[in-house]
Amino acid sequence: MQTPKAHVLAGSVRKLLRRKAYGHIANLLLKLRPGDISHLMRDLNERDQVSLFSVLMSRDRSLAAETLNNLGLEVGLEILKLLPSQEITNVLQELETDDAAVFISALPEELAQEVLQRMRVEESTEVQELLRYSEETAGRIMTPNVFALHEDLSVGEAIHSIQTAQDLEMVFYLYVVDDRNHLVGVVSLRQLLMVPPSTPLKKVMTGDVISVTTDTDQEEVARQVALYDLLAIPVVDQENKLVGVITVDDVIDVIKEEATEDIYYLAGVTDDHVQTPPAVSIRRRLPWLVINLATALIAATVVAFYEPTIARFAYLAVFLPVVAGMGGNCGTQTLTVMVRGLALGEVSWENTKATILKEILVGTANGLITGLIAGLVAFLWKGNYLLGVVLSTAMIINMFVAGLMGSLIPLALKKLNIDPAIASGIFLTTFTDVVGFLSFLGLAHLLLQYLPAA
Amino acid sequence: MQTPKAHVLAGSVRKLLRRKAYGHIANLLLKLRPGDISHLMRDLNERDQVSLFSVLMSRDRSLAAETLNNLGLEVGLEILKLLPSQEITNVLQELETDDAAVFISALPEELAQEVLQRMRVEESTEVQELLRYSEETAGRIMTPNVFALHEDLSVGEAIHSIQTAQDLEMVFYLYVVDDRNHLVGVVSLRQLLMVPPSTPLKKVMTGDVISVTTDTDQEEVARQVALYDLLAIPVVDQENKLVGVITVDDVIDVIKEEATEDIYYLAGVTDDHVQTPPAVSIRRRLPWLVINLATALIAATVVAFYEPTIARFAYLAVFLPVVAGMGGNCGTQTLTVMVRGLALGEVSWENTKATILKEILVGTANGLITGLIAGLVAFLWKGNYLLGVVLSTAMIINMFVAGLMGSLIPLALKKLNIDPAIASGIFLTTFTDVVGFLSFLGLAHLLLQYLPAA
Repeated sequence: MQTPKAHVLAGSVRKLLRRKAYGHIANLLLKLRPGDISHLMRDLNERDQVSLFSVLMSRDRSLAAETLNNLGLEVGLEILKLLPSQEITNVLQELETDDAAVFISALPEELAQEVLQRMRVEESTEVQELLRYSEETAGRIMTPNVFALHEDLSVGEAIHSIQTAQDLEMVFYLYVVDDRNHLVGVVSLRQLLMVPPSTPLKKVMTGDVISVTTDTDQEEVARQVALYDLLAIPVVDQENKLVGVITVDDVIDVIKEEATEDIYYLAGVTDDHVQTPPAVSIRRRLPWLVINLATALIAATVVAFYEPTIARFAYLAVFLPVVAGMGGNCGTQTLTVMVRGLALGEVSWENTKATILKEILVGTANGLITGLIAGLVAFLWKGNYLLGVVLSTAMIINMFVAGLMGSLIPLALKKLNIDPAIASGIFLTTFTDVVGFLSFLGLAHLLLQYLPAA
Repeated sequence: MQTPKAHVLAGSVRKLLRRKAYGHIANLLLKLRPGDISHLMRDLNERDQVSLFSVLMSRDRSLAAETLNNLGLEVGLEILKLLPSQEITNVLQELETDDAAVFISALPEELAQEVLQRMRVEESTEVQELLRYSEETAGRIMTPNVFALHEDLSVGEAIHSIQTAQDLEMVFYLYVVDDRNHLVGVVSLRQLLMVPPSTPLKKVMTGDVISVTTDTDQEEVARQVALYDLLAIPVVDQENKLVGVITVDDVIDVIKEEATEDIYYLAGVTDDHVQTPPAVSIRRRLPWLVINLATALIAATVVAFYEPTIARFAYLAVFLPVVAGMGGNCGTQTLTVMVRGLALGEVSWENTKATILKEILVGTANGLITGLIAGLVAFLWKGNYLLGVVLSTAMIINMFVAGLMGSLIPLALKKLNIDPAIASGIFLTTFTDVVGFLSFLGLAHLLLQYLPAA
């Protein structure tokens, strides 16, 4: 949510835009940080966003580019699409190669080609090289502008290089390479300060560098940066040649993105945001709903099978959704802990069996408690103790199955190299619906002769 | 998941533990990074974890402490609880104050007091001071060991301080303070290298420092670090006196923790992990299930009201869970996008109305499409076109409500300062269940005279 300050600022900007006081706006914006400007822009409507962005472009292209980057792909793209292709090129050229690649790959194919042709050859080549790597890999998110020095240099020469290099705000480590650009070591800026200038880099560097290859999954990159508390991680190709670097700010983006993806997949949402246009949201959410409808109808055939029983004992229909729903809720708890555990690396194949047994135990125990409560309520409500027994038993069975399937399904999907977040929920609720309906109505049918008609 | 290398390593360690070859194990462990050791320990059972940790403690206490920290609170605590209080004190004393505070606050009250008494006075005082701040605030997660220098020093003196300071691996910025310890500026290590040593710090520092106060919510801290791409953020008290610093590695932990919390809340899980003992998991998940049971039973009273209708047209029971389930799924999609949008700062009060309208539109459109499909299936299945009309209409109504309530509920909770992730789901499914049952059975009841009996 916005801070009160941002709110007041957005109000002033809207007024100034209405008065077309672009000079005033520019003076206001140039005092802010890119993060603050993007924060402010989120509070404006699309037309005002574009006007503001144009003012920014005309006065400080680099600030405009950083603001665009801070706005993120979804909002940034909406603004870019309203600009002429030369302007798009101008702003994207100001970005780091990896960030430019993100926007270009999301532009409509024809526009992307046009922008690439208008770009300076060197940058266009760099972007196209990044785009050759698969999405969500280290190669795709790295910046090729990595600061590396030859192992034969001295510390003094290294410090001089740092002093004269351009555009180095985000340099935390100095990577050391040999004649053929193989990554052979790493030195921190602080280490450089600790030794005499004549010391060879070879002597101060750490030889055992943690690195990833271009095809490493971005989630694994984030895990390593977090595990070893790094500020940046170098990227090498198959021959251990240094080709890029991924900094911690990009890793933070990856962590957020992957968490959002997991949350979304668990809820049946793909790549959707508050700002996504309705038509796009409808199209992206519909397939999940259609699949859910299909599985719900499959589960419904179980109920259809017991129609005569329901016709005689209509109150069974009252508790049907309770049995299925509680199984679904209980299974979702297990599923969520498993999916998150797999994402955070808490689950290992070694403790798989213990994990499944634990989840079965937890599901069954909670099934026992809530099942007895529900059974008691049903008995008191309908004055029928057999109904209570049937409801309790069905819930215990269903929550046992929920614990079993809730842990088994994500593990199985992971083994098959399918993202466990994406499909687990659908399989799970199909199981808990079918088992819930079957156990409740099946038991009711078996005990039919002892049940009084409604 | 573990890498093949970690798997082989865990195998060797298990063998060595069985042979009690502790010397061999120590030699093996001392070659690894803390991150690798914690990775390896996750593959061992609890007894082996404790044995391994004891070996580590006897040989390299600082490595043991870092490993403990990497294991995280849940697993780390299980190991700590099995150690004598003096050993716990020894290992926690090696940690940064903020990390030690995390473990101490999670120990049983009596044990925590004992450990605090055994600790060196200075560290014990620091830990107790952190524990005075509320959970999930900047004060609680900061480290009080912040590297700050007086504004009157020169760049040369500053570089000398860095060279002689102890334990500075995670220093990225030099904070500058005045006589009364007020935060007045910041300098990056690289900036220090760019100017002559005689330059006063005052001349090179940036005066406009982004900082947070001790009571800033940790989620807001993480948002600022991400927004401004910082490596560390200083923490000041109400008088702008510098009292601590939060580094990016801790921010990464906060981001993961908050994402996990949101995912868990949406699924009705609190602070639960794969390694959590079954009894604890049962106790933590049960309240959610009981609340869900209560709301499910409330919704069931709607069905109970229409029992006579169901007794006559039993096939209505077949489609009841379909209507309620589709509403729930559709609403969950909206809810998830809203909750994540609120967490990531994508939603502002300015665009609230547009957001709600969009979600209603998306819900209704998808309700129209899936409703028509479901209605057609019902018509073909039961050969009853009125049933199809009733089902379609009920689904459209329910998914309209799902879009409305899915966006309204999290916004309302946020306004009331309640975490929208925590309670939205329960309110939502209560609405979609009640509206689903009511619209489907209500419509069926109204059109009763035109429907043939089953």
